[in-house]
Amino acid sequence: MPRILYSDITELVTNAGVARKQGVGITTEDLGIFNDGALLWDSSKGILWLGETKEIPKTLVRGAKRIRLKGKTLMPALVDCHTHLAFAGSRHHEFAMRLAGSTYQQIAAAGGGIKNSVAATREISEQDLFKLACERVESYLALGVGVLEIKSGYGLDWENERKQLRVAQKLKRKYANKITFQTTFLGAHAFPPGTLTAQQRNAYVDKVVDEMLPQVAKQNLADACDVFFDEGYFDLEQSRRLLKAAQKLGLKIKLHADELADVGGAALAAELGALSADHLLKANDNGLRAMAEAGVVAVLLPSTALFLGIGYPPVERMRRAGLCFALSTDFNPGSSPTLHLPFILSLACLQMGFTMPEAFAAATFGGARALGMQATQGHLRVGAKPRIAILDCPSYQALISQMAHPGLAEAVF
Amino acid sequence: MPRILYSDITELVTNAGVARKQGVGITTEDLGIFNDGALLWDSSKGILWLGETKEIPKTLVRGAKRIRLKGKTLMPALVDCHTHLAFAGSRHHEFAMRLAGSTYQQIAAAGGGIKNSVAATREISEQDLFKLACERVESYLALGVGVLEIKSGYGLDWENERKQLRVAQKLKRKYANKITFQTTFLGAHAFPPGTLTAQQRNAYVDKVVDEMLPQVAKQNLADACDVFFDEGYFDLEQSRRLLKAAQKLGLKIKLHADELADVGGAALAAELGALSADHLLKANDNGLRAMAEAGVVAVLLPSTALFLGIGYPPVERMRRAGLCFALSTDFNPGSSPTLHLPFILSLACLQMGFTMPEAFAAATFGGARALGMQATQGHLRVGAKPRIAILDCPSYQALISQMAHPGLAEAVF
Repeated sequence: MPRILYSDITELVTNAGVARKQGVGITTEDLGIFNDGALLWDSSKGILWLGETKEIPKTLVRGAKRIRLKGKTLMPALVDCHTHLAFAGSRHHEFAMRLAGSTYQQIAAAGGGIKNSVAATREISEQDLFKLACERVESYLALGVGVLEIKSGYGLDWENERKQLRVAQKLKRKYANKITFQTTFLGAHAFPPGTLTAQQRNAYVDKVVDEMLPQVAKQNLADACDVFFDEGYFDLEQSRRLLKAAQKLGLKIKLHADELADVGGAALAAELGALSADHLLKANDNGLRAMAEAGVVAVLLPSTALFLGIGYPPVERMRRAGLCFALSTDFNPGSSPTLHLPFILSLACLQMGFTMPEAFAAATFGGARALGMQATQGHLRVGAKPRIAILDCPSYQALISQMAHPGLAEAVF
Repeated sequence: MPRILYSDITELVTNAGVARKQGVGITTEDLGIFNDGALLWDSSKGILWLGETKEIPKTLVRGAKRIRLKGKTLMPALVDCHTHLAFAGSRHHEFAMRLAGSTYQQIAAAGGGIKNSVAATREISEQDLFKLACERVESYLALGVGVLEIKSGYGLDWENERKQLRVAQKLKRKYANKITFQTTFLGAHAFPPGTLTAQQRNAYVDKVVDEMLPQVAKQNLADACDVFFDEGYFDLEQSRRLLKAAQKLGLKIKLHADELADVGGAALAAELGALSADHLLKANDNGLRAMAEAGVVAVLLPSTALFLGIGYPPVERMRRAGLCFALSTDFNPGSSPTLHLPFILSLACLQMGFTMPEAFAAATFGGARALGMQATQGHLRVGAKPRIAILDCPSYQALISQMAHPGLAEAVF
């Protein structure tokens, strides 16, 4: 069945203008919506034609199977561009302690924090971790997500960082017909458990840069490299060194930047030409403007801000800087235990002043750009073969207005 | 298969202390948790035994089928005690307009507001409405909900109020083995569309009280009666008259109270001995204290407050008044388009100062009490036959910490 004509689509969202504007300053018009739209799909070549159903050139669609999508929405699949999906263990107990008034120190003393996830991820077998990850990918599909980034970072030693990346690689093969993955090496997510001296911290950075990173590249385990550049984590010098080494090995780069303090993460992202800088709660205006000039995407993670109660990112200042936004779940066990990307869009609209077109663009084209995939993903155009989602509702708006509703996606391919 | 022994349950939550305290001032101890617990279930008699797996009396379980629940949670099913589930139509477009800066007047002029849902609900056939409702009930089951209230209120004429209530009655029959329903007549949800004079408004109240209500009772279409008592909706005199008439007909009563303004809803609920007063954002302290003395449950609806951006209920003042809390979705197309009850619990913890035990108690025992079902629902004890949920996670805490995660429930019965 090589060719399928999807016709009578109640809402066909193409993101035509979003792609032209590179995701900045998005309005409804930029979504390029056809009501009663049609799309001719070739399973190897991708999109052959799109437009209004009544305009379909008869010669072109001869022999194609026709699927009518009355009452449904066809759109670029959602992109979740920042996740830590391949983790083991749950940290609900830490959240319960926090709600009951425990301090960060008390939670850490009870075995809480990232070391909890590191221990669980080190302990689990690759096979069991893969099984867990598959369940999560199935949940993503039900929500309309078709492009997914996965970071390592809960191994913090080579054996277990590799295990996480191998699981991500296996997902690529298993879901080749449904989801496009980007795998990201985040060996510098935190320092390994235990109290480390400054010297020991530098020795860990040496290990990441000189031992792990070359292996990652050699074994083709990751497409990109990330670092947690923030107060109490990796510092400016360490972060710059690591990311430059990754670039030399041909990896794309991105940063966890300025989440806890203004450490200059935005500026470093601009300096190095990173794909994205993520979190940015405390980023300064100079850094934001430099990012915009360098074309670095601002990845915003509202559920993390909500879960930690640390306030939302400075969206207005970012708008004035002319940044392209991506919205993502930050799915991880410690600070954002949800993979519900449509909920993130609701949150951005309800709590951060996003309009619906902005939120939609940020979780499609913006996410694709944050992964360096904007040529093929996040918008529909003739000649491209993007991931596509079909929703069982008459508008993309229903996806966003339904706050945390169970999945609406009928198919992702 | 009349008897099943569930054993090796990683977390068996009984709510023993929650039931004894009537849901007020809940701590972790009140949840009555057994780790490595067991429960003997008889499909007609309910719970025959519960406790630690190692304490099971051998004679009692002879011949029972044994199901091991290692890594899982068995608990009272969640109760969603305030929903408008049997509606048609979606109002995502209004939300998009609001986000884009439209005023309430502009949205109303474009056909928005409750009249939109009334039109859609009047238009749909009973059969199609039932189908829609069934899909929603299936979503509830995946989230661990086993007790569910459904209101009418989008018909606003007898034919269509009856249609909504008949759909709810059909759900009762179809899901008899999984969910316990309470159906609530809410003919006084709003005045029918069109600008009405004070006289016409009173005439509608006459119709509700003198025509609809007696039919509801006669045809056994509802267990309870509700009214929207608030500024611009039904006033004190109308609300009191309606609820008293309902009580005379043997219906339980409850109120939408003090959501938009302090109109004395809490006090009226106490005066009439309602099961619950719901919303209560603007309720005054005297009213709250009167509610506590009269045993009226405070039903809090955080997602509505979030969606409308009107602030959260005064939880601290309610705690001081000694109120029993219920948490619910308020699932409806206009102001809370989600049925994700676990998300509501996350929200209560993250935004309203609830601890996890309080939130859990409020969505189990508290919800049951708000429906007058606390003798049988919302807690597990020998001799009772409550709805039960089995979760595919090792603690009820995971349900709450996972903000908007897709369903975790493995079974509800």
